[in-house]
Amino acid sequence: VSIVDNFARRNIANQLGAPSLTPITPLLERTKRWQELSGKRIPAYLTDICVDRAGLARLVGEHDAVVHFGEQRSAPYSMKGMKRREYTISNNLTGTTNLLNALLRHPRPLVHLGTAGVYGYSSQSVPEGWVRWNDEWRLHPMKPGSIYHASKCMDQILFDFYTRNDGLAITDLHQGVVWGTQTEQTGLHPDLINRFDYDGDYGTVLNRFLMQAAIGHPLTVHGTGGQTRAFIHIQDTVECVRLALENPAEWGQYRIYNQIAETQRVRDLAQKVASLVAEAQIDYLENPRKEAEENDLEMDNQGLQELGWDPITLDDRLMEEVTEIARMYSHRVVRNRIYCTSEW
Amino acid sequence: VSIVDNFARRNIANQLGAPSLTPITPLLERTKRWQELSGKRIPAYLTDICVDRAGLARLVGEHDAVVHFGEQRSAPYSMKGMKRREYTISNNLTGTTNLLNALLRHPRPLVHLGTAGVYGYSSQSVPEGWVRWNDEWRLHPMKPGSIYHASKCMDQILFDFYTRNDGLAITDLHQGVVWGTQTEQTGLHPDLINRFDYDGDYGTVLNRFLMQAAIGHPLTVHGTGGQTRAFIHIQDTVECVRLALENPAEWGQYRIYNQIAETQRVRDLAQKVASLVAEAQIDYLENPRKEAEENDLEMDNQGLQELGWDPITLDDRLMEEVTEIARMYSHRVVRNRIYCTSEW
Repeated sequence: VSIVDNFARRNIANQLGAPSLTPITPLLERTKRWQELSGKRIPAYLTDICVDRAGLARLVGEHDAVVHFGEQRSAPYSMKGMKRREYTISNNLTGTTNLLNALLRHPRPLVHLGTAGVYGYSSQSVPEGWVRWNDEWRLHPMKPGSIYHASKCMDQILFDFYTRNDGLAITDLHQGVVWGTQTEQTGLHPDLINRFDYDGDYGTVLNRFLMQAAIGHPLTVHGTGGQTRAFIHIQDTVECVRLALENPAEWGQYRIYNQIAETQRVRDLAQKVASLVAEAQIDYLENPRKEAEENDLEMDNQGLQELGWDPITLDDRLMEEVTEIARMYSHRVVRNRIYCTSEW
Repeated sequence: VSIVDNFARRNIANQLGAPSLTPITPLLERTKRWQELSGKRIPAYLTDICVDRAGLARLVGEHDAVVHFGEQRSAPYSMKGMKRREYTISNNLTGTTNLLNALLRHPRPLVHLGTAGVYGYSSQSVPEGWVRWNDEWRLHPMKPGSIYHASKCMDQILFDFYTRNDGLAITDLHQGVVWGTQTEQTGLHPDLINRFDYDGDYGTVLNRFLMQAAIGHPLTVHGTGGQTRAFIHIQDTVECVRLALENPAEWGQYRIYNQIAETQRVRDLAQKVASLVAEAQIDYLENPRKEAEENDLEMDNQGLQELGWDPITLDDRLMEEVTEIARMYSHRVVRNRIYCTSEW
């Protein structure tokens, strides 16, 4: 395994003044620690795939498969003004195009991190990516809720074309909202811990509730909390990537999996967290996003289960997250980063 | 009316060594001649909308509406190697994003040139952009046949988002294959004539047949010629833009019109042209594109007709094009640019 990183996420955290709740050691410290513990070396290439096309193609040729996480991944950040809109579109699409072009030269299975948000949240029953349309398979009609989500819809259009026309083998993992912090591997040493983002831009809803509960801050629900969303534990996200790599798509296939463990209504989540912590209060705030106040959601997730995935549910691990991570690092919270300031 | 141009099309014609059949005078000569003839000045701003965000926003603010033609518009060119794929994606998407962001600052009706190719050619009956999906309107499922067509699908995703979320008013004209050379205005003086591209990258199928017939070259049909495509005369393309500007979309509306006059099968077109010219032969060549050999196509074009459009058909003007333009300039043909060299 090698890493390609341009440190965009660390730079943005600096710009926003919103550090991870958990302390993140420098990348080279992390890989060194991992080598001590596992005996395995992870080379890190510090380059930008939007710029260094030749370096990217060379690296692709030296490896057996590619996992593409290299995109600006926050919906609120993508909506913080025109520059961030443009950055999200150009960064995500140029990076994806350069990677696809590198794969034309050195065909390798690609696993990409998509989002369950490509479908929009008005359909009640969502298949895994494809629908029948006039006797052939087409991508499910899309309805992104932010520029970030739009960029992942646009990725889908490229993936569909490069598989149909050029015979690439691509798996898109349309992931739900991630919660949790540790995987088996990152739990081996404090130097290896994952980011825990709780700020209004990069914090996902459940991690935000966990942190808020840990510091005695009211849980911030946007609107009525009637939004139903899909969730997955971080340990499962790596499990699903492993399954997708070990069982790659066919050449010429654009395979889409919904990488979600369960769906939950946001206000129910807030109540679940509140019930684990003695004095937790819930604040219903004005919703900064343009979205339906209430929606139902059923999402097919058979594909990954057929590969052997047994999802972790909120009931399995929630208490552990509250007590082990959020409380342990609660002294690091920057309180004025908690509220969402990005409105759209 | 003002023009914003970075001369990308002229530069690419130079790169490819494929000049227009008709001689194209410098832009400032054209606008000067137009002013002499019409009394109207057309200021030209030589800038790149991918780069000059501030200049673009200022210009948008100084005008009543925007017509967006600023994209790399050739499917074969977009498939000529990795650099052209990347250029087409980044140029088209960055330009569109910058323009949409300028419109956030100065809301104006936008008319954009789309393509009938966003729908793919496997559906037999194509509506104007939107379909019912789970009780709401969604963009018709897309299936682009080239990177160029993919970029226009991706534009659609942005237009849908910026109208729904930001209240912009956008008309997308999903145009068929353009044929013909002159409009009423360009016919006023030889200095004003439009491009007539006949090369394998930028030449559209009917113009290629007309030029081939004029110089006694066999008409080059790709595959069986069973592809059914939608066509429109160049005079009508400006008529439709005028109608869309005079009857703008509502604020918050993403309005899609199919800007097509009629559908024709490619081999029928070849025969129609051959019948107008004594010794014209037809050559059936291997198809350089990955596409269905035969398809039927019916495409709704009610929207523009309801605004008053009365389409020009092939039967009205074909003879005139053959005799007036293709023959007049046939001495300018660069014969080794006739065949398509871009394969996908």
